[in-house]
Amino acid sequence: TFHIDWDASAAEKGGYDYFMLKEIAEQPHAVAETLLGRLNEHGDLLLDEVRLSDQDLRDVDKVFIIACGTAYHSGMVAKYAIEHWTRIPCEVELASEFRYRDPVLDRSTLVVAISQSGETMDTLMALRHAKEQKARVLAICNTNGSTIPRESDAVLYTHAGPEIAVASTKAFLTQLVACYLVGLHLAQVRGVKYADEVAAVVAQLQEMPKKVEQVLSMMEPIRELARELAEAKSVLFIGRHVSYPVALEGALKLKELAYMHAEGFAAGELKHGPIALIDQGTPVVCVVPSPRGRGVLHDKVVSNIQEVRARGARTIVIAEEGDTAVAPYADHLFYVPVTPTLLAPLVTTVPLQVLACEIATARGHDVDQPRNLAKSVTVE
Amino acid sequence: TFHIDWDASAAEKGGYDYFMLKEIAEQPHAVAETLLGRLNEHGDLLLDEVRLSDQDLRDVDKVFIIACGTAYHSGMVAKYAIEHWTRIPCEVELASEFRYRDPVLDRSTLVVAISQSGETMDTLMALRHAKEQKARVLAICNTNGSTIPRESDAVLYTHAGPEIAVASTKAFLTQLVACYLVGLHLAQVRGVKYADEVAAVVAQLQEMPKKVEQVLSMMEPIRELARELAEAKSVLFIGRHVSYPVALEGALKLKELAYMHAEGFAAGELKHGPIALIDQGTPVVCVVPSPRGRGVLHDKVVSNIQEVRARGARTIVIAEEGDTAVAPYADHLFYVPVTPTLLAPLVTTVPLQVLACEIATARGHDVDQPRNLAKSVTVE
Repeated sequence: TFHIDWDASAAEKGGYDYFMLKEIAEQPHAVAETLLGRLNEHGDLLLDEVRLSDQDLRDVDKVFIIACGTAYHSGMVAKYAIEHWTRIPCEVELASEFRYRDPVLDRSTLVVAISQSGETMDTLMALRHAKEQKARVLAICNTNGSTIPRESDAVLYTHAGPEIAVASTKAFLTQLVACYLVGLHLAQVRGVKYADEVAAVVAQLQEMPKKVEQVLSMMEPIRELARELAEAKSVLFIGRHVSYPVALEGALKLKELAYMHAEGFAAGELKHGPIALIDQGTPVVCVVPSPRGRGVLHDKVVSNIQEVRARGARTIVIAEEGDTAVAPYADHLFYVPVTPTLLAPLVTTVPLQVLACEIATARGHDVDQPRNLAKSVTVE
Repeated sequence: TFHIDWDASAAEKGGYDYFMLKEIAEQPHAVAETLLGRLNEHGDLLLDEVRLSDQDLRDVDKVFIIACGTAYHSGMVAKYAIEHWTRIPCEVELASEFRYRDPVLDRSTLVVAISQSGETMDTLMALRHAKEQKARVLAICNTNGSTIPRESDAVLYTHAGPEIAVASTKAFLTQLVACYLVGLHLAQVRGVKYADEVAAVVAQLQEMPKKVEQVLSMMEPIRELARELAEAKSVLFIGRHVSYPVALEGALKLKELAYMHAEGFAAGELKHGPIALIDQGTPVVCVVPSPRGRGVLHDKVVSNIQEVRARGARTIVIAEEGDTAVAPYADHLFYVPVTPTLLAPLVTTVPLQVLACEIATARGHDVDQPRNLAKSVTVE
């Protein structure tokens, strides 16, 4: 048994019809809480529990991220951040697959295990397998004292508070934050980022709660669109770079809640098969990277939007404020605030959560208790 | 311009209604051709063009596989084989994603580019990016003298012959063979496999054309089932280990040809979300690993089949001859011949190709020319 250090009263719905709606609304707070007190007076980034020396972290020459479901999508984003900031190769793997193949790992491998509950059996078994191979293990979890953090060499807790709805929302956003912090910590310990550089990114992260709040204040048009889409047969999601996992997460939410066929694709893969699915009126949600980040990436996504639209798709475009290039090809256009390239998933995911939640509600489903699913998967 | 060394007459349909049916039937021959003459008198495995020294290959400490669509699925299988045989870490990445992130690579990285046409623009651009970073590049292609092999340091040609149908079938099976050969070659050059060990696996590969032939001779029940499924709203595919990419490939074929919502999942991921999609009668194709390979993996898949069936799924099970454990949970059971664990995709993919082709035909589609798709994607 383990204790959970939050108050039972927090588990009430607080005026919302569903816990999920409340948890979506709590995201700015959850992100802020996860960031609280992470920098000490010397500008060093702090994890919660560290049973590893800085030398252990300097010796790391490979990172594996293991997770399931939504947490896996946060890990996909982490890969971009960790490789960009540290240049350590980082591989993301489904825990259930990692465990049963023969991953190449040793004591200079850092395995990052991400699990909201800290009890996800697939992730736990993968973690134990990693430890048997002498790898170092760092946990990102939302539940103090749960099994995964207890068995790890280092822990970063997300402070999302209790998540009651089965489909993860605020836990996902805080997992993203935790992944960025782990990336920065590795970069700092290894000397590839100065304290002021780390502090600059932390400052950008600290701007995110306000930006998530802004997104939440603009969701009425998304809800209206969702009600129109309630009878759609399927919805596709496309993205590139960090928007690719966002597309996967948007599709997963719609599967979980609305039981609709929804699939996320790397936008570049469309022409290699999935574009055959596009018929007159097929809704395609396009998550567009910032044009300020890597221009060519933005342009490629704009081409992809044109391509799907030319085949009849109804394009639902999530883009950065001021990105006028996408406007001519968007049947529906939703802007999110300007955000650093790597941090964009913290804002672009939110409209997709709201979309899925509202479509499911319009279809008459209980979004807190989707059929066939358990909140934390404690069997393999 | 470049020359293509096969005869134009081979491009006729040879009595089949569609090129795709002809190409599915040609798979035993295509696999045999790709294996022809690969061992010299000293038991050394031969590629087609090698502008790399053995020392270059011994220096490799990381393999990246880059590909798109179906070729990407062959790369996913290659990862298992290469890591199992050589213990070199191997990462598989969509070419369109690889190109626009910042992959960590250098002159001791081997990049394996897989493309049927040798002209796939996303793969070519990724290859050029890899070369700029000083990585070594090995191409697996089906078209002699095309751009990707010309720009590579080493080439292994698949001898599938011309593939006319847009959806790849025999090219995929020969890409698998090529991937196994590359894995064995790396293992041999690096001294982690003796010549007799390599020869033993090559002998197993040489048994595969006969086994594929056997599978093809047992396809009538699959065709009957396909006609029953023609009106299904969606079909899910699950697998673990090397059967996971097979599940993805089965789903891709159905998307491309039948325009049906079809999605492949790592079986362990079901409980983390996608199981919500399963309704009374949802067809779920389950690709079961051999019980002789890794018992626990087989048992997990059997549990997954039970789980989806308990939620109402209609289970369509592809399993190894003699695997009686799956029978109680299979609404439809199709056996494939006994095959070494890593080579199983060469037989388990075939029923999924036939299934997709027959469902699409029953729905009235031209399987050679799916809507929206081009045979070789020569734009990014």
